[in-house]
Amino acid sequence: MKTRFFYVGIRVRDMDRSIEFYTKFLGMKKKDHSRIEATKGDVVFLEPEEGQVGIELNHYDDDSRFNTKYVAGEGLDHLAFGVKDLDGALSEAGRLGYRVVEEVKTEKSRWAYVEDPDGLWIELVQSGA
Amino acid sequence: MKTRFFYVGIRVRDMDRSIEFYTKFLGMKKKDHSRIEATKGDVVFLEPEEGQVGIELNHYDDDSRFNTKYVAGEGLDHLAFGVKDLDGALSEAGRLGYRVVEEVKTEKSRWAYVEDPDGLWIELVQSGA
Repeated sequence: MKTRFFYVGIRVRDMDRSIEFYTKFLGMKKKDHSRIEATKGDVVFLEPEEGQVGIELNHYDDDSRFNTKYVAGEGLDHLAFGVKDLDGALSEAGRLGYRVVEEVKTEKSRWAYVEDPDGLWIELVQSGA
Repeated sequence: MKTRFFYVGIRVRDMDRSIEFYTKFLGMKKKDHSRIEATKGDVVFLEPEEGQVGIELNHYDDDSRFNTKYVAGEGLDHLAFGVKDLDGALSEAGRLGYRVVEEVKTEKSRWAYVEDPDGLWIELVQSGA
């Protein structure tokens, strides 16, 4: 079947807190904020660059049937972002109060994980972009 | 901070089963299969089109410290894919034994969710692409 991968939707417990993490720390742009009555949910779409695959933040009302008990879980292993200066990025994470949970070094590359406000692992990998 | 969103990494419990779902059902292309000794993990990268953001399947050895008990969780709300023919896609899911868990209709659009082999929700949305 032919499909087109559009975006990854993550669930957030506090929309403002997550918008701050993904826009101020990771530098993404907030594109839309929409309300979906069918799911009693709010959706904020973030995109890194025009036309690219982006990230959708999903928040559900207390009485939405999708507002199941939140467990970050293992399904989403991590979201990966390239950064030019990994050490600088990790310092900035620390300054903003985001926890660096892991650093990995192989012969070829170096990366680290920072927790987002809901405990999801965000990989930062040193790269040209 | 300037970053570039590279990909979403999901954790899978059975690599072959997940490769089948993402390539045969969703039509993605398998790009690389690599081994990372630092995490005792296997990684298969899938990309929909050259240069686009893709999906990484992560499998960890039994004795990897990342092989924590698997709970799909709420962190990953869904991965979204555009399809030309939603009804045809849902029939195909049924034929291949994948469960359709939800259908949503609003005035403007129509979409549905299919479970991947680990229980993650895959959104299929009717679109031109």
